[in-house]
Amino acid sequence: MATVIVDVMLKQEIHDPQGEAVLSASHRLGFGAVKGVRQGKRFEVELEGPADGAALAAVEELARELLANPVIEEFSVHATE
Amino acid sequence: MATVIVDVMLKQEIHDPQGEAVLSASHRLGFGAVKGVRQGKRFEVELEGPADGAALAAVEELARELLANPVIEEFSVHATE
Repeated sequence: MATVIVDVMLKQEIHDPQGEAVLSASHRLGFGAVKGVRQGKRFEVELEGPADGAALAAVEELARELLANPVIEEFSVHATE
Repeated sequence: MATVIVDVMLKQEIHDPQGEAVLSASHRLGFGAVKGVRQGKRFEVELEGPADGAALAAVEELARELLANPVIEEFSVHATE
């Protein structure tokens, strides 16, 4: 079994209210060095067989179709070490 | 400015309804090779200064206090390359 990671984040130009909420909470808790926070989703996808090119391509297609909204989000796919 | 990544996932023994929903949707879309999906959160934390030991320790404390629920979640912290 191979595990492929898909990280989905809002595009830079998209307003991130969740990230801002975490940022202000960080400051309230005294973490003044924190200058910005962006929040996204992380998927661990388990596949039959090795994490080869074909598997990564299939997960990329899955991400495009199901895991990310291409209008406002961008994603990256990588196999776990 | 340094960017430190915090990945928060449910502990293995915790039931993951979101992951299961994504798994069944994957199968409906024809991605039969997908055997399991777990969904979590990914935070990009921007800090003043370098991503040195002190910065990573501060973000680890932030994760423990704010970003993850230690009862049901586990997290990992790493600086971006």
